[in-house]
Amino acid sequence: MASTNPARGTRDFLPADIRKREYVIGIIKEVYESYGFEPLETPAFENLETLTGKYGEEGGQLMFKILKRGEKLDIANAKKVADLADLALRYDLTVPLARVVADKRDKLPKFFKRYQIQPVWRADRPARGRYREFYQCDVDSIGSTSPLVEAELISAAAEIFERLGFTDYVFRLNDRKRLSKMVSDAGIEASLETDAMVALDKLDKIGEEGVLNELQARGISREAAGRFLSFAKDPEAAPQSETIAKVVSLLRSSDRIKDDPSLARGLSYYTGMIIEVNVPDLPGSLAGGGRYDGLIGMFGKEQIPACGISLGLERILVVMDERGMFPPEVADSTPADVMVTVLDEETAAETIKLAAELRAAGLRVTVYPDADKLGKQLKYADSLKVPYVCVLGESELAEGKVTLKDLRTGEQESLERENAIKKLGAAIRWKA
Amino acid sequence: MASTNPARGTRDFLPADIRKREYVIGIIKEVYESYGFEPLETPAFENLETLTGKYGEEGGQLMFKILKRGEKLDIANAKKVADLADLALRYDLTVPLARVVADKRDKLPKFFKRYQIQPVWRADRPARGRYREFYQCDVDSIGSTSPLVEAELISAAAEIFERLGFTDYVFRLNDRKRLSKMVSDAGIEASLETDAMVALDKLDKIGEEGVLNELQARGISREAAGRFLSFAKDPEAAPQSETIAKVVSLLRSSDRIKDDPSLARGLSYYTGMIIEVNVPDLPGSLAGGGRYDGLIGMFGKEQIPACGISLGLERILVVMDERGMFPPEVADSTPADVMVTVLDEETAAETIKLAAELRAAGLRVTVYPDADKLGKQLKYADSLKVPYVCVLGESELAEGKVTLKDLRTGEQESLERENAIKKLGAAIRWKA
Repeated sequence: MASTNPARGTRDFLPADIRKREYVIGIIKEVYESYGFEPLETPAFENLETLTGKYGEEGGQLMFKILKRGEKLDIANAKKVADLADLALRYDLTVPLARVVADKRDKLPKFFKRYQIQPVWRADRPARGRYREFYQCDVDSIGSTSPLVEAELISAAAEIFERLGFTDYVFRLNDRKRLSKMVSDAGIEASLETDAMVALDKLDKIGEEGVLNELQARGISREAAGRFLSFAKDPEAAPQSETIAKVVSLLRSSDRIKDDPSLARGLSYYTGMIIEVNVPDLPGSLAGGGRYDGLIGMFGKEQIPACGISLGLERILVVMDERGMFPPEVADSTPADVMVTVLDEETAAETIKLAAELRAAGLRVTVYPDADKLGKQLKYADSLKVPYVCVLGESELAEGKVTLKDLRTGEQESLERENAIKKLGAAIRWKA
Repeated sequence: MASTNPARGTRDFLPADIRKREYVIGIIKEVYESYGFEPLETPAFENLETLTGKYGEEGGQLMFKILKRGEKLDIANAKKVADLADLALRYDLTVPLARVVADKRDKLPKFFKRYQIQPVWRADRPARGRYREFYQCDVDSIGSTSPLVEAELISAAAEIFERLGFTDYVFRLNDRKRLSKMVSDAGIEASLETDAMVALDKLDKIGEEGVLNELQARGISREAAGRFLSFAKDPEAAPQSETIAKVVSLLRSSDRIKDDPSLARGLSYYTGMIIEVNVPDLPGSLAGGGRYDGLIGMFGKEQIPACGISLGLERILVVMDERGMFPPEVADSTPADVMVTVLDEETAAETIKLAAELRAAGLRVTVYPDADKLGKQLKYADSLKVPYVCVLGESELAEGKVTLKDLRTGEQESLERENAIKKLGAAIRWKA
């Protein structure tokens, strides 16, 4: 007997979950569309070589790889993973985008502004709010180095958070070029720059002393490490970033923007501005991104500048759930506006006909499938929080009427069929 | 240098593709919701044991399996696939649904009516219209054996085809119980029933003579094979199906319904009615499904009846594309209603401000990111088929005006900023 659990770190989304997810995704799409971003989708898996070497140390280990098939699979002579796997599930939406842009440059506009809302997969250790399958909502601008790009991306993401009802989010901004200057100004060798970034990226998790220790463990002197950290802690002391200054000047209201030289971000492909969005009650970020002018060129066709932000759907949902931020029609959704009862097999065709007439009036209608006792049918409708029931019993059928029951008030009345339909149509339209 | 192709048998969906896909998916969701079906989503991969043994011969071979990770992966001592893989990408949406129902029965309504629109993966040989990643749009009713279920499923799917503009679709109906009777009435041994079904399923592909040969190759006498095929060809000669008779009587208009005893369907989990939807110009089907009262019980908790239909999104799109069935706003979509030009870095903040005002008026607005020559900016807008451009040049900024250009007519006028916004808002609302 097979287990009935979903695979470790993954989840089944029941209807009530999906309603919430679709509400958030709907707002994200609407805002991105209003900024002229267009939808793109890429396959769940990529050729292994497409993803290899794009994410730094950790990424390679956390990728889900797919077994070769048929004759290509030679278990007896396999020595390493690459002998056994030829595909991998996508790890983010940025590398697939870079591949698509390199592949289809001639079919895409000069400035390609795209959004993409799809799941990604990482074989991370599952924990509260950390899953092995999770959605990213990415928005990227391809083809321009103008700071207008960063300003527009930040502005669109901020509008999404506002529309969702967040009032305490902060965009932290830093610049990989400034981080490089912090490394050299601190007296750290250029060859240890990546080490310095990796250590700094852990500041939120391991604290200042932890970062200092890690910097030393990676071969950086305590003195240089101290200078590096003092820059990271103080935007005034750190070298200034021209990009950040330009972007901030373009944004009308900057009270949600913070210049933060301690922000490093884990992924290795960033080259300029880096961005993270935080709220006080969530460890980790609601969104992150940055400029990656070198990634598309790694596919060897043409060097094309790019910049993007990725919203973490799961984390946004966690915070919205905890704070009760969903509107009532999303939080308390029902599968139908009205249920039609069924009397027996002989009259079932009449039930179906009434349901069709109600649908034609714009109602969402479910039909009780079995010829159970009326009480049982009403109880079922009530358990689904369906507000109205149309009873088609013997007397109703004989008289050509229906009994319309309001399950919230318990009231019921016998109506001509067309009047019942009119009344329900009006009640539901009024609600919408 | 890595290849830039998507993996074999998979596709990147560019914005114009997505618009079409979302149009079809939107109608499918709207109709299913109007019948009281609720959305469900399941993970892309399942534990290998969940999927194993559910699909018959072919399914096991065509499943994409995922390599074990970390210490669990022991390449040196691996002998067979099960030593190397512990997960598999979902092969359809029905088995995951059955697992969810077995797992979460107490959280789901007694009659659970769900739809699910997600990709599935099969390592099939890619061919025209056959991909390794493709979407299924499933609708299923769990918990009732009533023929009302089949009638409602057929009626909802038919409404979708009508709404999409199909006028020549046919629902072919058969019944696995009747097929069993055809097998025994033809004098074929019960032990060869599956062989008889598998051979009959190939009728469309290999013709009558081919099926007769295959039946004989599988150990059925030429005589019995002939009788079996004569039943399959003639609904009058074949044993009658009570289920089909009941369902047909429940459907108001049955001119799109055909009783077809030759329909067999490949999957092994069907137990009652089987359904396929065809159009004349497509080999294969637009949709298929049936009743599977034994599948949920295979997860060993409880035997629960179920029935469903799966729409093949890719095939629906292929036919709609070939026939030009998309409305103009879908076929000729643009990324924005208006583009705002940018003069130079100093005035870029004004450009962003105007764009925000236009968005507040309900317009989809894109901003040209670089301070290129005006001609180049207009050419870009034209290449995207954006209908309007707001020019913010030196003179416009000095006068507090904008030049509004209609790219379709070439006309342009200088307007006060608020008048330009009003005019554009009205023009786009009129269109919508």
